Amino acid sequence: MEKERKDVPIVVIKRLPRYYRYLGEMLGQGMTRVSSKHLSEKMGVTASQIRQDLNFFGGFGQQGYGYNIEYLYHEIGEILGLHKGYTTIIIGAGNLGHALANHSNFKKRGFRLLGVFDKNEMLEGSTVGGVQVYHMSKLDKFMRDNEVDIAILAIPKYGIKEVADKLVSLGIKGLWNFSYSDLDIDPSVAVENVHLSDGLMTLSYRITQNQTQP
Amino acid sequence: MEKERKDVPIVVIKRLPRYYRYLGEMLGQGMTRVSSKHLSEKMGVTASQIRQDLNFFGGFGQQGYGYNIEYLYHEIGEILGLHKGYTTIIIGAGNLGHALANHSNFKKRGFRLLGVFDKNEMLEGSTVGGVQVYHMSKLDKFMRDNEVDIAILAIPKYGIKEVADKLVSLGIKGLWNFSYSDLDIDPSVAVENVHLSDGLMTLSYRITQNQTQP
Repeated sequence: MEKERKDVPIVVIKRLPRYYRYLGEMLGQGMTRVSSKHLSEKMGVTASQIRQDLNFFGGFGQQGYGYNIEYLYHEIGEILGLHKGYTTIIIGAGNLGHALANHSNFKKRGFRLLGVFDKNEMLEGSTVGGVQVYHMSKLDKFMRDNEVDIAILAIPKYGIKEVADKLVSLGIKGLWNFSYSDLDIDPSVAVENVHLSDGLMTLSYRITQNQTQP
Repeated sequence: MEKERKDVPIVVIKRLPRYYRYLGEMLGQGMTRVSSKHLSEKMGVTASQIRQDLNFFGGFGQQGYGYNIEYLYHEIGEILGLHKGYTTIIIGAGNLGHALANHSNFKKRGFRLLGVFDKNEMLEGSTVGGVQVYHMSKLDKFMRDNEVDIAILAIPKYGIKEVADKLVSLGIKGLWNFSYSDLDIDPSVAVENVHLSDGLMTLSYRITQNQTQP
């Protein structure tokens, strides 16, 4: 069942991973159901906002009962596509590439890392996070031989556009971009631009304005 | 002038770093003013939302003129506290600690890295990102001798609570937490919990639901 849900606002989409994480924690604690009030306190949004969010995907709650945690966790996982087992590659075997390759949560969420690519020939044949490092010149062949869904760009912004365009031409479906330079590419490819310093600036705001609680 | 702005919603606060980045880019391109329409397209929110956001801080726009980019950039930087020159330390000299220490944008935004701490004694005396690595046992003395505003926690979740509690007892003002484990600490300390896999899950959603554009 692949209903198109074109009109879900991005702010709602961005809350889904948090719902998923919190529900997963509750499951781990042996909880079976949660009231929208409890969930709303955890999420820091109103109970009515939670009902609105979940109504985009057909509801899931029951009046007077709340939410069945296991069911909701499973459904949100499906909506997020975590059952698909998307395959990933990492471009860039530097410190950030290493840190991301070793990030245990990605595997836990169902993502499968297939390889790491770097322009430094000396790194070819080494392993990072349990997968092999290939020279960038092997990218074309690798992507023809393997179905790669998502490329994680752990490289600086210099030359990022060329790498992104190449990946798009080779059929990549999504780019997770850590180059700190927003990518403007083919609109059929999903791009998540990560700006780590935004978090540090938010923290700076909260210290400056004495708003320690979000 | 340090007005308290207790009631700014977190969603608005989280947009401020993006306004700041975009305005900085426009300045770099030699632009001097921007209409709320243009800024809203760039931000992906409505023009009325932008006016609402900025009204929390006193406005800044002029009917029929739009926004003076340099002025707005400067003002938002002040609101974010970037002129304060907050000092930081990084806990954890692993791959992520290295990547963060070398992240050029932090310095560009006015943050000053003073030192990196690790529990591995072998690393003591080496340098990361231009600053010295200290053993964790030196943390108390270092924080008594230096004014440290923000600690960046680039360590796994095991033992994170003890490290966070120690930093709080030593007077830290903010924690930027990459341990993928939400911290529950003294409410007078600001905490930003980073969950990198949320971005990957959002990307997975957009691929799964064919919503490539945010």
